[in-house]
Order: sequence, then structure tokens, then C-alpha cells
Amino acid sequence: MENTESIDVTIREMAEAARNAARIIGRCAADQKNAVLLEIAAQIRQDAAYIQQENEKDLARAKAAGLSSAMIDRLSVTESTIQSMIAGLQEVARLSDPVGTLSQTWIRPNGLQVSRMRIPLGVIGIIYESRPNVTIDTAGLCLKAGNSVILRGGSEAFESNKALATIIHRALHKVGLPEHAVQVVPFRERAAVRALLKQEEFIDLIIPRGGEGLIRFVVETSKIPVLKHYKGVCHVYVDAGADLEMAERICLNAKVQRPGVCNAMETLLVHRSQVPEFLPAMAKRFSEAGVEIRGCEETCRILPGIVMATDADWPAEYLDLVLAVKVVESMDDAIAHIAQYSSNHTEAIVTRDYDRAQRFLREVDSSVVLVNASTRFNDGGQLGLGAEIGISTSKLHAFGPMGVEELTTTKFVVLGNGQIRE
Amino acid sequence: MENTESIDVTIREMAEAARNAARIIGRCAADQKNAVLLEIAAQIRQDAAYIQQENEKDLARAKAAGLSSAMIDRLSVTESTIQSMIAGLQEVARLSDPVGTLSQTWIRPNGLQVSRMRIPLGVIGIIYESRPNVTIDTAGLCLKAGNSVILRGGSEAFESNKALATIIHRALHKVGLPEHAVQVVPFRERAAVRALLKQEEFIDLIIPRGGEGLIRFVVETSKIPVLKHYKGVCHVYVDAGADLEMAERICLNAKVQRPGVCNAMETLLVHRSQVPEFLPAMAKRFSEAGVEIRGCEETCRILPGIVMATDADWPAEYLDLVLAVKVVESMDDAIAHIAQYSSNHTEAIVTRDYDRAQRFLREVDSSVVLVNASTRFNDGGQLGLGAEIGISTSKLHAFGPMGVEELTTTKFVVLGNGQIRE
Repeated sequence: MENTESIDVTIREMAEAARNAARIIGRCAADQKNAVLLEIAAQIRQDAAYIQQENEKDLARAKAAGLSSAMIDRLSVTESTIQSMIAGLQEVARLSDPVGTLSQTWIRPNGLQVSRMRIPLGVIGIIYESRPNVTIDTAGLCLKAGNSVILRGGSEAFESNKALATIIHRALHKVGLPEHAVQVVPFRERAAVRALLKQEEFIDLIIPRGGEGLIRFVVETSKIPVLKHYKGVCHVYVDAGADLEMAERICLNAKVQRPGVCNAMETLLVHRSQVPEFLPAMAKRFSEAGVEIRGCEETCRILPGIVMATDADWPAEYLDLVLAVKVVESMDDAIAHIAQYSSNHTEAIVTRDYDRAQRFLREVDSSVVLVNASTRFNDGGQLGLGAEIGISTSKLHAFGPMGVEELTTTKFVVLGNGQIRE
Repeated sequence: MENTESIDVTIREMAEAARNAARIIGRCAADQKNAVLLEIAAQIRQDAAYIQQENEKDLARAKAAGLSSAMIDRLSVTESTIQSMIAGLQEVARLSDPVGTLSQTWIRPNGLQVSRMRIPLGVIGIIYESRPNVTIDTAGLCLKAGNSVILRGGSEAFESNKALATIIHRALHKVGLPEHAVQVVPFRERAAVRALLKQEEFIDLIIPRGGEGLIRFVVETSKIPVLKHYKGVCHVYVDAGADLEMAERICLNAKVQRPGVCNAMETLLVHRSQVPEFLPAMAKRFSEAGVEIRGCEETCRILPGIVMATDADWPAEYLDLVLAVKVVESMDDAIAHIAQYSSNHTEAIVTRDYDRAQRFLREVDSSVVLVNASTRFNDGGQLGLGAEIGISTSKLHAFGPMGVEELTTTKFVVLGNGQIRE
């Protein structure tokens, strides 16, 4: 056990070293950054046995501590984990480099040429829970965007993350970039997280990835800006006149394709006119898929034998084969329900009506709003961002899936020929 | 004096009302938002006497409290203040409306059409010091971007701000928009600021405008994301081979045109090769303009009789007719000096060299970087953003002057025809 004071000193030194490394990584060419990513991938392939051997230490400790088999599953570095880390790095290497691009250029009346140039954020701190592949995924994205990164994984994955850090450092060294561009916090203690959150002088952004408890702790403790991802209470609204075959397909996919994730549907809203035809058929398909329905009064009348929803159901993120169902009088009612209960994550409408599709898109205040498609598409890869570092449910800086571009910002560059201000 | 508990209750009610109003203002058309801005302008013209009469109460109180004449000057609502408030509103009304625009659209292989739609942030809290015209300027920009705003001005301007709020409410009412879209905090007490900073459930962004003390207090207290503007320690680097006549003109403008503002030059960096010809001539012009120079050793050798700079001078924001001057060996030295001491606000190079111009633009990590132009152009109006709500010196969400667009964010809108995730 390290004492808090020595942890504070080390974390501060790490943050300062990350800041210095950021100046170098921030100005290096796309080729060199891609070379590091591919070199990390090559080293992971070559040293897979070493990574798995270190991972075994974490697994042994986890088993001794009596962690659930689901937790141990998430912690395991299997051959398929190795392959997905490598594929992820190769995919990020293929993305175009946003750094240095000029997104807009205009000329002022006095002849000044003004542009916005995309630049790295600087130093990013990532705090995450057990899966060791997050170490590789996030390091790859941060490097691609020209940032330094400090990684603080779960203490369960301590040895695995140390091994991955060794591999990343070897790759950085080989390509001639500073090793401090990627650092893994070398402490199991929670005090290390507190210390990290105090380095506002050196760190530009903190991204917590994990459960709501972790995220709330980070938001409340950090002096550094935080991009946060709270829960996903996602809705599908089946509009009057919607194609019911399509509605069934989308609703089934949104609920059951992977119920444990943030972009799965948690509440289904159905226009009253669709109730007689749609609800019994839909309920049958849900029942076959093992979904438990908790319905509003109206739903319970149509579908006898189902559980009545309580006030706790409308804001619930079940992450399970459970679904709240409510009958609404109009799209306005649906939008009002969403405004009250959604977590600004993902909402979809199934409709054939042009005006209501447009209004739903404009008026629903969520990071991804869809017409006639499953909520499960709220994902950086699915939307075409290439890879994602999380999904932001707050609006500042990024709202929705965050890819490489969201790990950058813009500055103004101004070209003159002697202009002064009158 | 109100007690803290009743302040907390009122502020929470205000924040919730602002959130409800944001849903309405957020979806209203540009025409209607512009109508409110022009109606506020008309009412200010019509009720100028009332505003000035309420302002007199603040002035009397300020004089009784012994405030400095500079403070009283800033607090005064003169005919010219009235005119500038009206002109500002008219200018913001003329800006194009960013809300609802689609900045990018692409098609996924499965046919999904993905776009980013620009949307309001929601509810913005502004905390500022004495000048009452900030009340009108910021209310105008927030409304234009479709946001609700809660304004907390300096307690010195309490009566003036109340009068302006009355006028804004009348205009909102007349145009048929909710009055809670713009609210002025009705308490002089500091507890009201603390209460405001706790409303993370309802407020999306806090912008403090004022001195460093105010900004640090807000950053340390707020649970809501903050866009902050720290000090401006701006540099001009005069490169080897630069046009010295242009360099003199730019440096003089950057230092003396308005020395008390954040984008004025505070440190001049001069390449060694330019010292003999440039420094004496420049020093003479500075001396004529009343500028006191604090020089590095080399500068003091060339310019006998000037004050030697100490370690405290390099990071200093003088906001006065004082300038630190340092001779550097190369542009790399200049960039390293800037990396160590600048506040990431504004830096300029005067050069004829293509490579060094490009490198300076890319490698200097400031919100505005200029070639051959005065630092004084770091300003929303000067750069063509129309109007600004402040200059962000931190990188998240916005870096540099913030106009209407920086008071918005984007969400993803996705158009499908039945797509589900495999």
C-alpha cells in the first residue's frame, strides 16, 4: 500500500510528463501516429502469451476474491480479445487524421483570412472498470487524435493493464515517440483517482467509463471537465398509421438483440389508434423472446395478465428482458413523456407521416434521434464514426457517440499582411 | 436579507421554469426569436428614461459605498450604453440562425442517412460583474441560439438589471414566448450564486464573466460544466527576416491600442538577428506611447536604462502600459517560451518565412494564432462571429471567442426505412 502523499506526487509527475509528451504527439504527422498504432497491434500479436500470463494473475485474484462469473468473463483476455484489440487498432489507423484540418475559412473585410484548425485536446484522463481491452481501444483513439492519455483501469485488471502498458511503451519507443504519451496509473488505491482528478493544470479532459456510481463520483470530485455517459432510458414511439410489420421488427430488435446495453429500448410508447392491432401481436413476439411487459392501465386492459407499471418503471433502465409499455393519445403526449423520463440518450419513432417525422427529429432532445430504425444504432461504429470512446449524454463539447474527432477541438488561425485594429 | 434556504428554493424553481421554457424557445422559428430581439430593442428605446432612473439608484448606492470612479463608469447606463444595447440586439437579430441546420450528412452501407443537427444547449447560467449592458447582450445571444438563460449580474447593478429584466419580459410576452426564457436572479446575496451552481439537473452550462477570482470560485464550486476565460498573456514574436516596419506597427497596436484588455500583447519576443535594428526603434515608439519596458538581460544591454525583468514578469498579465521583452535565439525558443508562459489566449508571429509561419500556426497552442496581424483581433466581432459571449481559454466545447454557434451543440438525426441491427 502506498501512502496518499506519495501517490499524489507520482500522479502529478505523470500528469506533467503527459503534458510535455502531448506537445510532441500533438504535432506529429498522421503516418507516424498510424505507425505506432500498427506497431502496438504487432506487439500484441507477438506477446499475446505474455499478456495472457499477466491476465491469469488478475483472474486468479478475482476468483480468490469471489467475483461473479460475469465479472471474470469481462476480465478475461481470450484469443478473441487479442484479435479484437488488434482489429480495433488497425481500424483506427485507417481513419483519416482530423488534426490540422481547416473546417471553415472566411475572409474579413480588412483582408484577414480566418480559419478554424482542428487540434488535439492535449492530455486526456480515462477512468474505467474491468475490461482490459478498453486500455488498448482508448489509447489507440487518443493517440490517433494527437493526445497524451493517462489510463486508470479497474484494480481487478491491474496486472493485465501493466502488461499492456509495457507493450505500448515498447511500440512508442520503437517509432520514436515519447513513452509518456500513454501512461497507466501504477496504483490500485482509490486515492490515485482522487489525485488524477486534481491535475487541472495538466489534464484537459476526464472520461469516466463505467457504472453510474463511478461516473457520479468523478463528476462530483473532478476539477477537470468531464465527458459523461449516464444511463440510457431509450424510447420507441409507434405512431398512428405506422407500418406495423416494420414497427414490430424495430421494437423487437431494440429490446432483445442485446438487452444489457445502453441503447436498448426500455419503454415502448404506442399511439392509441394502433393499440388493437399492434399491441397483442407485438406482445406475443415479446413473450416468445422472454420479455416481461410492465404496462400502463390501458395496456393491461388490452393484454390481460401482464404486470401493471408503477412510477418506478417509467424512468427505469432495466438492462434486461423487461419493457415498460404506455399508450399515448398523440405524438405530443409521446414527446412530453420522453421529455419527462428519457435520459437524452436515444429515441426512435416509427411513422409514415412526413410532418411528425420532422417534428420528432427536431423536438426530441436526445443525442441520437431516429426515424424508422432501431435504437441499437446509437454507436460510433454503426453511425460511421469508426470507433468510439463512449457516448456523451450531456451536451457540452460532444452529444452522442464520441469518435476521434470528439477527442479534438478547434483553434482560430488568422493570416494577415500587417493588419492592425483601428 | 433572504435566508439561504428560501434562496435555494427560489433558484431551484427558476431553474426548473427555465428548463420548461427552453423546450419552447428551442423549437421556435428564427423569425420569432428575431422578433423578440427587435422588440426588446424597441422597448429599451421607449423606456430608456425608466432604465436610467433605476440605474440612478445603483449609482447612488455605489457612490455612497465609495466605489472607484472607474467602477461607477462601468456601472453607468448612458445614452451611449442605450444605443449600444440596441445596436447589439439588432446585430444579433441579423445573424443567421444555427438551430436546425445539418452540418454533415452521410449514408451508411445499410442505407441509414446520418446527419448532425445543430440544437440549443438548453439552459445557460451567466454570472457576471457590474456592467448592465452585459444583461442585454447575453440575453440576446442566448435567445438567438434557442436557449433559456438565468442571469446573475453584479449586486452593484441590481436595480438596473431588474429594470432590464422587466423590459425583456414585456417583449417576450408581446411576441408570445415564455417569460421564463430570460430570468434575472432576484437576490443580492452570494448564496444565490452557490444555489445556481447546484442546479445541474436543469442547467446545462455556466459562463462566468469577470475577474479571475470570480472564475476560480465558479469552477471550484460548480457541478455544472463551465466555459471559462482566464487571463490573456499574449505574445508577439518578431522573426528573423520580418518586415520591421510591419512589426513595429503590429507591436504598437497590440500593446497600446487598448492596453487594459485580454488580447493586448504582454510579452514581445524578438529574434536575436533583429535586435540591433528593431529594438531601439521599437523602444522609441513605445517610449513615446508611454510604455514601460521590462527587458531580459540582452534587451537591457541594447536599451540602457530600462528595467530588468524578473521571473514574475514572464507570466504577468499587466493590463497596462507595461511590456516584457525577451530576445530569443530561434523560433523554437520563442515557441518554448510561449508554451511555458502563455495563457493559451492569443499569440502572433511577424514573419516573411513560409515554413516558420506554418509551423507557428500549427505548434502554438492558443485559441487564436495569427501571422502578420495584431493580437487585438481575438474578438468575436473582429473575427466575423457577429457577437461574442466571451473568449474560452480552455479547450472543451469552445476554444477562443464564443458566438451564437458556441451556444449550441449537435445531435445525430438518423433517417431509416426499417433498419435493425444484426
